[in-house]
Amino acid sequence: MKLTILGCFSATPRTDTNPTAQVLEIKNHLFLIDCGEGTQVELRRNKIKFARIKHIFISHLHGDHFFGLVGLISTFRLLTRETELHIYGPKGLKDIITLQMKLSESWTNYPLIFHELTSNQSEIIFEDDKVEVHTIPLSHRIYTNGFLFKEKPGERKLDMNAVLNANIDVAYYRKLKQGFDVYDNSGQLLENKALTKAPVKPKSYAFCSDTAYSEAIVPIIRGADVLYHESTFLEKHAHLAKPTKHSTAKQAASIAKQAEVGKLLLGHYSTRYKNLKDFQLEAQTVFESVELAQDGKEFTF
Amino acid sequence: MKLTILGCFSATPRTDTNPTAQVLEIKNHLFLIDCGEGTQVELRRNKIKFARIKHIFISHLHGDHFFGLVGLISTFRLLTRETELHIYGPKGLKDIITLQMKLSESWTNYPLIFHELTSNQSEIIFEDDKVEVHTIPLSHRIYTNGFLFKEKPGERKLDMNAVLNANIDVAYYRKLKQGFDVYDNSGQLLENKALTKAPVKPKSYAFCSDTAYSEAIVPIIRGADVLYHESTFLEKHAHLAKPTKHSTAKQAASIAKQAEVGKLLLGHYSTRYKNLKDFQLEAQTVFESVELAQDGKEFTF
Repeated sequence: MKLTILGCFSATPRTDTNPTAQVLEIKNHLFLIDCGEGTQVELRRNKIKFARIKHIFISHLHGDHFFGLVGLISTFRLLTRETELHIYGPKGLKDIITLQMKLSESWTNYPLIFHELTSNQSEIIFEDDKVEVHTIPLSHRIYTNGFLFKEKPGERKLDMNAVLNANIDVAYYRKLKQGFDVYDNSGQLLENKALTKAPVKPKSYAFCSDTAYSEAIVPIIRGADVLYHESTFLEKHAHLAKPTKHSTAKQAASIAKQAEVGKLLLGHYSTRYKNLKDFQLEAQTVFESVELAQDGKEFTF
Repeated sequence: MKLTILGCFSATPRTDTNPTAQVLEIKNHLFLIDCGEGTQVELRRNKIKFARIKHIFISHLHGDHFFGLVGLISTFRLLTRETELHIYGPKGLKDIITLQMKLSESWTNYPLIFHELTSNQSEIIFEDDKVEVHTIPLSHRIYTNGFLFKEKPGERKLDMNAVLNANIDVAYYRKLKQGFDVYDNSGQLLENKALTKAPVKPKSYAFCSDTAYSEAIVPIIRGADVLYHESTFLEKHAHLAKPTKHSTAKQAASIAKQAEVGKLLLGHYSTRYKNLKDFQLEAQTVFESVELAQDGKEFTF
């Protein structure tokens, strides 16, 4: 599971920081999460192949999280994309994009499929045989979802020494991987766990931006390997976090601790702060395993 | 008259080029012309004060000319702007911007005034005592206007030696500057041109992007000091220019020659070309005074 941070700063534009966008590589999928202005250029800068992006998840309709989407959709058209593109985001996003395509007379030459979200309950919005994606209803000024990306458990691994010793027909290997007990050539039932090893533990990534401190998300993200939780402010500006419905680094850490996640990744920093290290130090007073998202940084989990 | 090129490349995104946006400083106005994605960051990079921009002119609704507008409008709001912002552009632009403000619940805290354009005839869309702005109907795939920015003739300059010699009362100075004849203290009528000098010749700038080769614009832009004319292609790709309704460098030069402009500025280059010098060389086979627009370049006329 590899995460590339294209941008992790809040809205005010600067020449050296980008608004929110991330690419999550998980089980051969390349999921784009949020798409602030300039994301298409950051994808180029990070040498991410446009054609591999087939699913884009938009948390909410504040500009720093989606103003780059229409440009990316247009560019895909210019590059004569043919592959389907699925977009998951709040109701209204389809209207915004289609109005612009209509007025520019620039309909896509590839299927563009919107999955508009309206529920205030966590729901599965994408699923295939390897991955599922759940929404994480967040508490922000407008309708906002985080996203939980979960690998499905893989198949069990054959313990080839045990399998060969037990003289099991190749035809049964598939059953073994799926966890079933099998019969050997003499007709004796053999227990699966004597012949196989547990699959690699499936990984999960929770993306939570933007949100006020909200314990309601804890049950949804519990045990995630990595939690990206916004920390727009430090505690000394908690009075700004509250009315804007953002979080402090300490609040993000408190959520990480309650949810018993493996690692906390901070981001969506207000551009008022010069030293990001302060975010990490503040969060670590509550939860130890904290890293700082930074534009252009790659994390492999 | 100072022109800053924020971006002058066509649509395909690259890490080292920007889509169309320019800032024209003329008679204390700072006019933003087109606003491709990322323009707000380029404004920052070129240290142009956001608050000085009060008028934005959008040529057409292809993304590489306006996808940065909504972000800029949002940023003005975040920066608690109070000054009016006037936007001139094709009908539909207001719908695009207001839909996004509505869905993000982010109405501006400053007056945002749209002047939507629908005419296919050149018209005056802005005028004050020093400057007027005319549309230049262009020939592109969708409704498109270029813009002609014209200084109005200034007042005549007093020839102070002559004025003092003629012993003219200070009360008449204003009349003299306005071109009127005046009476001296003895009641004799004195001719204005014996007492004043002609004002500095007013300057003009014509912005023409995007457009096919169109001689219809020649009468509108005739005698402009500077003509920015798109040259998306070189002549060797004229077969691409025609269906996409773009121009070649040679065609741009032909328009410059017919319109007897002072200087031709080329831009809106397709990103397929490595060497921009070829555009200048091609245009100079037809018209001598040619310069190349380049991102971040300033021209003072």
